[in-house]
Amino acid sequence: MIQFSINKTVFLQALTITKRAISSKNAIPILSTVKIEVSAEGITLTGSNGQISIENFISIQDENAGLLISSPGSILLEASFFINVVSSLPDIVLEVREIEQQQVVLTSGKSEITLKGKEAEHYPRLQEVSTAKPLTLKTSVLKETINETAFAASTQESRPILTGVHFVLTENHSLKTVATDSHRMSQRKLILDKAGDNFNVVIPSRSLREFVTVFTDDIETVEVFFSNNQMLFRSEHISFYTRLLEGTYPDTDRLIPTEFNTTAIFDTAKLRQAMERARLLSNATQNGTVKLEIVEGQVSAHVYSPEVGRVNEELDTLEVTGEDLVISFNPTYLIDALKAANSEQIKISFISPVRPFTLVPNSNELDFIQLITPVRTN
Amino acid sequence: MIQFSINKTVFLQALTITKRAISSKNAIPILSTVKIEVSAEGITLTGSNGQISIENFISIQDENAGLLISSPGSILLEASFFINVVSSLPDIVLEVREIEQQQVVLTSGKSEITLKGKEAEHYPRLQEVSTAKPLTLKTSVLKETINETAFAASTQESRPILTGVHFVLTENHSLKTVATDSHRMSQRKLILDKAGDNFNVVIPSRSLREFVTVFTDDIETVEVFFSNNQMLFRSEHISFYTRLLEGTYPDTDRLIPTEFNTTAIFDTAKLRQAMERARLLSNATQNGTVKLEIVEGQVSAHVYSPEVGRVNEELDTLEVTGEDLVISFNPTYLIDALKAANSEQIKISFISPVRPFTLVPNSNELDFIQLITPVRTN
Repeated sequence: MIQFSINKTVFLQALTITKRAISSKNAIPILSTVKIEVSAEGITLTGSNGQISIENFISIQDENAGLLISSPGSILLEASFFINVVSSLPDIVLEVREIEQQQVVLTSGKSEITLKGKEAEHYPRLQEVSTAKPLTLKTSVLKETINETAFAASTQESRPILTGVHFVLTENHSLKTVATDSHRMSQRKLILDKAGDNFNVVIPSRSLREFVTVFTDDIETVEVFFSNNQMLFRSEHISFYTRLLEGTYPDTDRLIPTEFNTTAIFDTAKLRQAMERARLLSNATQNGTVKLEIVEGQVSAHVYSPEVGRVNEELDTLEVTGEDLVISFNPTYLIDALKAANSEQIKISFISPVRPFTLVPNSNELDFIQLITPVRTN
Repeated sequence: MIQFSINKTVFLQALTITKRAISSKNAIPILSTVKIEVSAEGITLTGSNGQISIENFISIQDENAGLLISSPGSILLEASFFINVVSSLPDIVLEVREIEQQQVVLTSGKSEITLKGKEAEHYPRLQEVSTAKPLTLKTSVLKETINETAFAASTQESRPILTGVHFVLTENHSLKTVATDSHRMSQRKLILDKAGDNFNVVIPSRSLREFVTVFTDDIETVEVFFSNNQMLFRSEHISFYTRLLEGTYPDTDRLIPTEFNTTAIFDTAKLRQAMERARLLSNATQNGTVKLEIVEGQVSAHVYSPEVGRVNEELDTLEVTGEDLVISFNPTYLIDALKAANSEQIKISFISPVRPFTLVPNSNELDFIQLITPVRTN
């Protein structure tokens, strides 16, 4: 029968992180609960939606937590409701005490709230991932890589493999990360400081977006482990499990062109603002595109909607080389690409109006490349 | 044919205020537009949803606006879309020029956006309100009165008159403001500095909530005018029209009790927090109530839900007098009342478990009174 007292703020923080894996509308009702396991060493909070699972450990060693454990045990509590109740408590210290029949009493100040829970044995087992031979990554590097690629993954389930991000480690140091929804592609390459066993996995982009939120900037490194169909990101207190996508990721290397006929360098922020204006009107057109014209070194953007109006925009460039060109594309893809490009200047290279064009940071052309497919118009 | 240039920020601010009267989903399509009228003196922006109308004037005298008018005229433009376009423009100065067939060209920096509009003659006429004999009110006083009462108005259309707030001026100085949804009531009385003609009107609470947002704190006073079925709040630049509700407002004075059997004084913030905890669980009960027990000077709150659990809460009081009492009510009504009570301590007075109880600020018992009807439970 559980009994402990804890700092409310620390407990709430840990619950809120765990909650990110919990959906209150899960088809499996028990997955809307948080599992609370109290041992002599501390408290483990577990949440899962079947795809992602998060385990969060609060140690008795953690001074901020002020955790005093009188009696161990485990229980399941409705996650959203429990978090609301804890956050409403009046005092900074909270005492949790299990009484008969899976009931816990929360005491804080002069407030006493009794909640009904469920037996912890009913909670599904999370798949085990062997924690031998970790690959250690800097959290900031991994998060940046995710931010640069995950947005380009597909949100449509028609080709499930494209809803993931392809992570490949070769030669124990070379990490390649790619995502594509077949209209655009984003690829980041980097060399790891520390060696690891080679791997080739497809991680759901949704899981990666949760990873970015759960692993805050104060967590310097994460250990990464793989099993057959799961992986685990682990820091000192948090274990974040996600399922992997099954199937073979398409060969994206062959899509990347190497020879171009026209190249222009833009200020990233200005180009993005121009495309955001263009998008306001392109949304009201039939094919939703903006037309880019490169004529004698001058670049301009155009949208015409018979119902709403038109945009004509002269674009500032830092350099234009090669042939004249007229090309149409969905401005949202370019806006997303420019958001992901963490660089003040961007180099865009074209082959022809019907071939994908590439974007690379003007400073570093090798490690980060994006591809956007144009739309044919007549 | 309209032609002017203006500071983008000032123009956007005025458009955003005007937009508060405009619903993009109005059943009358023309009411989703903003009317732009350019005269030699300045620009008038008009928006309306049929209930509320806002006119906003930008004068050529306004130095911040940097308004230069080359040619007058008027046009209707789709409000949401126009605001999005203006806010996306690159330069701080914006030039607007009408070309043939109700089209305007916006030029800003190197960006040129053409928008299709409609003929201004198609815009409906706003009802006229005579602007003789204004009543001048301090904006802050009017807004506080609204905040203290409008929340208690009904949101249900079954008794339309109760969706309004009753404003009555008697003896040229005494303003009484009342709202009730028949479960709770809030009444504020105040003495005006300046005299006005007596009136007795019911103003839609929704209009009053918009008024609070539109008239920012830098507007010191507003002039108030009435016609048969409309009223006008006017400041230097903004004219805010609202329809009045028709019908006779119920006599609320007779509802207010004057003799009580039990009285308790609470810290407003602490009581509110306790009720918010109670509400978490009362939402899961059949009748959604909290039970307040006053026994020998001790006040406690209780909720019991067979499914979810229970709350027991000892409440701090500053003073308790009179008979013991057990009374049940919807905690949301008490929470709303405590939010409206702009006072650190609140005095609650009871007659019996089945009669409405009153709340007054502990500092000033005469001018602001609220009433909450209990729920009978067995």
